[in-house]
Amino acid sequence: MIKFVTSNSHKYEEAKALFKSKNIELSWVKMEYEEIQAEDNELICRDSCMKLTEKIDSPFFIDDTGLYIKSLNGFPGPYASYVQSTLGNSRIMEIGAGSEAHFKTVIGFSMESEIYTFTGILNGHIAKKESGTNKFGYDPIFIPEGYDKTLAELSTEEKNIISHRGRALDKFMDFLSSRGIK
Amino acid sequence: MIKFVTSNSHKYEEAKALFKSKNIELSWVKMEYEEIQAEDNELICRDSCMKLTEKIDSPFFIDDTGLYIKSLNGFPGPYASYVQSTLGNSRIMEIGAGSEAHFKTVIGFSMESEIYTFTGILNGHIAKKESGTNKFGYDPIFIPEGYDKTLAELSTEEKNIISHRGRALDKFMDFLSSRGIK
Repeated sequence: MIKFVTSNSHKYEEAKALFKSKNIELSWVKMEYEEIQAEDNELICRDSCMKLTEKIDSPFFIDDTGLYIKSLNGFPGPYASYVQSTLGNSRIMEIGAGSEAHFKTVIGFSMESEIYTFTGILNGHIAKKESGTNKFGYDPIFIPEGYDKTLAELSTEEKNIISHRGRALDKFMDFLSSRGIK
Repeated sequence: MIKFVTSNSHKYEEAKALFKSKNIELSWVKMEYEEIQAEDNELICRDSCMKLTEKIDSPFFIDDTGLYIKSLNGFPGPYASYVQSTLGNSRIMEIGAGSEAHFKTVIGFSMESEIYTFTGILNGHIAKKESGTNKFGYDPIFIPEGYDKTLAELSTEEKNIISHRGRALDKFMDFLSSRGIK
């Protein structure tokens, strides 16, 4: 039984469905935790995971996602959710439309006093207008590489296959299987 | 003897000159320290101060400054320096020119297992064009209330009197005097 530490029920449900397909049992530790400031969300995730190890019995994992827009020197980076709730998508397009960008999800996994990280990246670019009805965060303004529509225009199944979070979770589940962890 | 914990020599020199005028002795602990993510820099400053108390003998202080732009829902807030180094002033003007804004400096002071905070605020608005030769951070695009020029166009002496950091340091020094601390 592995714990997923997150305050976000949506993330938990997504992971639970994926884990079930691999016969791995998941439980939910619903809590918020402190994150440090740093330019790369991998550092932040590793740090949070280490600090949570003092409070929560392992094995558990957390995830952290950043959006890096090339023409804006990587902004908003790890502060993607703060920037989403203050600037919002229309202002991000004002200053970043057309630029290459990538999402990066990092999963931090704590087991037997070790921290492991698994990274999933989705390359693409910032759209010139918002589109799509699956309105979640930056999805309506992010066009994945090889597509001519935004993430918000893809079906949930399609999105889960190519998405940064889906890819990170895949690597994580492969690791768990290779160790025989259920 | 009070310690100022900062990695920024400019900040240390500014405070040292002010403290000297009040006959308070200052020493410099040059180091970087971790900061948590939070929407208000007062919370961040208090948290850092508490955590540093485990590493550094008190009395010591730190400072933390944020810029809150009203039309951008408070953005960039505590992430002012990250946003300065990624977006820069011209892009901030693209999305925030003309808006009301304020700087907020918070000083966190650790003494005898207590944390005290002192806040200095400077109200104003975001300029429509950059001006001033004293190029420091957002100074060339911030017009203080009651002025028709940017902070970067004021003399250092004039700026120190009205500035958020100057005001916070003033309150702090008043507190020290009232306690007879030198």
